[in-house]
Amino acid sequence: MSELVGYVAATLTTIAFVPQATRTLRTRNTAGISLAMYMLFTSGAACWLTYGIVIGSWPVILSNAITCLLSYVILMLKLRHG
Amino acid sequence: MSELVGYVAATLTTIAFVPQATRTLRTRNTAGISLAMYMLFTSGAACWLTYGIVIGSWPVILSNAITCLLSYVILMLKLRHG
Repeated sequence: MSELVGYVAATLTTIAFVPQATRTLRTRNTAGISLAMYMLFTSGAACWLTYGIVIGSWPVILSNAITCLLSYVILMLKLRHG
Repeated sequence: MSELVGYVAATLTTIAFVPQATRTLRTRNTAGISLAMYMLFTSGAACWLTYGIVIGSWPVILSNAITCLLSYVILMLKLRHG
């Protein structure tokens, strides 16, 4: 049961960045988006990915590979259009 | 060493929401922010918090209590000013 809550949590926090990335790609409106947030979050997701590889955890690797990529896309859009 | 990478990762992805929340509180500009992202992320952080309580993990509890609160603040600002 606790495992299920963990998987739901991981799925929600991973897919959360999909609508933000698609919205930012579509509108190019980055005025309300914090550059600092996406610098910190992309770095953090890259660290989680590294940690997942080191400890050999596929759930950590997969979820953070997706999050890191989406967060990086938003960061690049902010740098270009911000 | 791997523990250190994990703690750095957790710190970065937790504090990342501080500059976004303060920026949104200050500017009230939420046009570029995705409502779906903050609905999904706040729900996900709440699930992580629940999971942390169930498994008795203080790092999971503390980091997600902070993230859930900050993400909820951004969600409320988006609902009010979006």
